[in-house]
Amino acid sequence: MARNDQYCLHCNGYIADSEGKVEWLDSVPVPEDEDFGFSDFMSNIDAVVMGRVTFETLIGFGVGWHYGVPGIILSSTMTSAPAEFAEYVTFASGTPQEIVDLAKGKGHSNLYIDGGDTVQRFLREDLIDELIITEIPVLLGDGMRLFGELDRRLDFDLAGTEVLADQIVKTHYCRKHQ
Amino acid sequence: MARNDQYCLHCNGYIADSEGKVEWLDSVPVPEDEDFGFSDFMSNIDAVVMGRVTFETLIGFGVGWHYGVPGIILSSTMTSAPAEFAEYVTFASGTPQEIVDLAKGKGHSNLYIDGGDTVQRFLREDLIDELIITEIPVLLGDGMRLFGELDRRLDFDLAGTEVLADQIVKTHYCRKHQ
Repeated sequence: MARNDQYCLHCNGYIADSEGKVEWLDSVPVPEDEDFGFSDFMSNIDAVVMGRVTFETLIGFGVGWHYGVPGIILSSTMTSAPAEFAEYVTFASGTPQEIVDLAKGKGHSNLYIDGGDTVQRFLREDLIDELIITEIPVLLGDGMRLFGELDRRLDFDLAGTEVLADQIVKTHYCRKHQ
Repeated sequence: MARNDQYCLHCNGYIADSEGKVEWLDSVPVPEDEDFGFSDFMSNIDAVVMGRVTFETLIGFGVGWHYGVPGIILSSTMTSAPAEFAEYVTFASGTPQEIVDLAKGKGHSNLYIDGGDTVQRFLREDLIDELIITEIPVLLGDGMRLFGELDRRLDFDLAGTEVLADQIVKTHYCRKHQ
């Protein structure tokens, strides 16, 4: 099972601005100790599959690897990480199905898929079982889109929705297989 | 005040498929007499401003003009409507601000802005005060996007959200002017 938990701009669909920046995530003030259910979510996750660009953004945040499970970084060029990440992450490249098989071979069946391009690649191969989308009420205008083109329509079931910090809508979808 | 009430694909952002079709709107079964608050919404609207493409889609539905208020159809080429619409709609062209001024001149201050391209044009001129977005859990894959590019970021306040027919998320945003 592959899961996704993405911050996303409401329907404008951009997850980073035209310079790849994500400062807009801070546009809604949130309590310091509020994680919006992220710990609960991660308690069901065996490994994080993350695109290189997202990993580099994470490195820039200076918060280290805070997921509590191993990370598989997707890159055909990057082979080593800064020291504080080295014990947590490995690097891999291949098709989404190959990555899922690789993770399964390591005993990781519940994957958290992170990164705009990576999520799109997994969606195109219909390998996303759950989507958790956290929408902040900002129209960015341009930038990197959460969703790209697919070669077919994918139907989901609404599993739940909640309002966070009075401004953010978090919605949980499960893939509906007819 | 200009309002918008759009059906939109969750974050995928497409409002019509690549052939301009909207059959995916029927993917969630809804009770025959359920209008999801549309009558309440329309009770505060003075006129509908609609793009030509959306108007032609409406004509194709064969349901007539069911808004209860006058329509202003935006087109630089279309000058007449089928007989069943003729008493309800007029045609106009111009910038979004010119259309708002034209409507105000007719005594219409609360406008419902409808149509993908039209909503984008009004958003680009920051003339949308409220966005009501109704999301059906389908990723269309490609087609016509609800939101296009903007030359600046627009911040909104979350005014409310509700789940309809157990599957549809309707979210109400108000433009936040700093």
